[in-house]
Amino acid sequence: MTIIMHDLAGADPDLRFSPYCWRIRFALAHKGLPVETIPWRFTETDALAFSGQARVPTIQDEGRVVFDSWTIAGHLEDTVPTPTLFGGPIGRAHARFINVWADSVLMGGIVRFIVRDLLDIIDPKDRDYFRTSREARFGTTLEQVQAGREDRLPAFRELLTPVRLVLRNQNYLGGTTPSYADHIVAGTLMWPRCVSRFALLADDDPVAAWFGRMLDQYGGLGRNAKTA
Amino acid sequence: MTIIMHDLAGADPDLRFSPYCWRIRFALAHKGLPVETIPWRFTETDALAFSGQARVPTIQDEGRVVFDSWTIAGHLEDTVPTPTLFGGPIGRAHARFINVWADSVLMGGIVRFIVRDLLDIIDPKDRDYFRTSREARFGTTLEQVQAGREDRLPAFRELLTPVRLVLRNQNYLGGTTPSYADHIVAGTLMWPRCVSRFALLADDDPVAAWFGRMLDQYGGLGRNAKTA
Repeated sequence: MTIIMHDLAGADPDLRFSPYCWRIRFALAHKGLPVETIPWRFTETDALAFSGQARVPTIQDEGRVVFDSWTIAGHLEDTVPTPTLFGGPIGRAHARFINVWADSVLMGGIVRFIVRDLLDIIDPKDRDYFRTSREARFGTTLEQVQAGREDRLPAFRELLTPVRLVLRNQNYLGGTTPSYADHIVAGTLMWPRCVSRFALLADDDPVAAWFGRMLDQYGGLGRNAKTA
Repeated sequence: MTIIMHDLAGADPDLRFSPYCWRIRFALAHKGLPVETIPWRFTETDALAFSGQARVPTIQDEGRVVFDSWTIAGHLEDTVPTPTLFGGPIGRAHARFINVWADSVLMGGIVRFIVRDLLDIIDPKDRDYFRTSREARFGTTLEQVQAGREDRLPAFRELLTPVRLVLRNQNYLGGTTPSYADHIVAGTLMWPRCVSRFALLADDDPVAAWFGRMLDQYGGLGRNAKTA
């Protein structure tokens, strides 16, 4: 039975930009599992009432409801063991470090480059919620958070040092082929790719070359995704 | 045959403080492999001439010479597969991310808290080399690099966020028991523990509780190590 996944969308229902949803889109493709995605907007809490919470990705898999990208990845690995996302319990434990690094360091870095751009692509009905909640979090306007981003680019690129150093010695974070670690970081980078024209990665950065390889995986799933 | 390892020592030959050597001490203990360590100082390049390079850890294992902590860990895993350090190739690939994160982010953070303290514990014959090479790297005096460290403590502790977030859900970076990922981070934290009395971790930090568990592993190998 096809998995159903609620997936964050913009005003354009084909524009999908959640870094957490993209991790799972890549993981599903890695497993060769078909998925039917349902576009969802931030304020459509009723549409997720069946899950008892209000965030995406949320999947329905043969009647079972699973949410939170990390939990979904574990569910997929447990129910469809091959091809593996983690390579066993220690690989999964180590991937959790990369997952929380991406959530905190990487996403915390990226958001300050795209948060005002996001406002332009989300559904009009989400805009008040988005501006109010994000401005409360940052303690200033979205415009101020994003201001001066060109000057902050070198510091952001420095945050990617661990990814860059790994790629000196292996083609993927998972080694010779992508693992869920690659889906975590590539999924996170789909977020700025889809919502903003601002170039976060330098063309000659090995991270950009790796991201290009990830965009081409699974029949160009990432490469062909709609962008703003 | 017992493995021989050249191990960075201070003026006191029992004071062992290299973050890279500690990773391997923990990895050897994890494997249950006996080791004979040879105290080595920064300027004793001749003593490592047999290896064709001049850094520690360098091990001699049944006539085979292996250096660089990451390479040694792989060698140990390949020659003595159990108990495993990595849990397979994907676990190893993921551990590399944690290794380079520790080398760049974590060590880059720690050094600014202890680099002047290091001068007091290293062998007198190493001091000119140490001061000259490190001051060239930082572009200022060791005293200036370390100055104001109390004020920089919150920012340093923030760097440990990924470790802290992982420990919310598992007892070790390796999951239910330590893996080489734990040896990497705990080995790195042995460096400030052994050379400085400055407390980098708050007592109530979950990272401190985990480090305490790591100090107690392998018969208290870390706990009983000599400190300055």
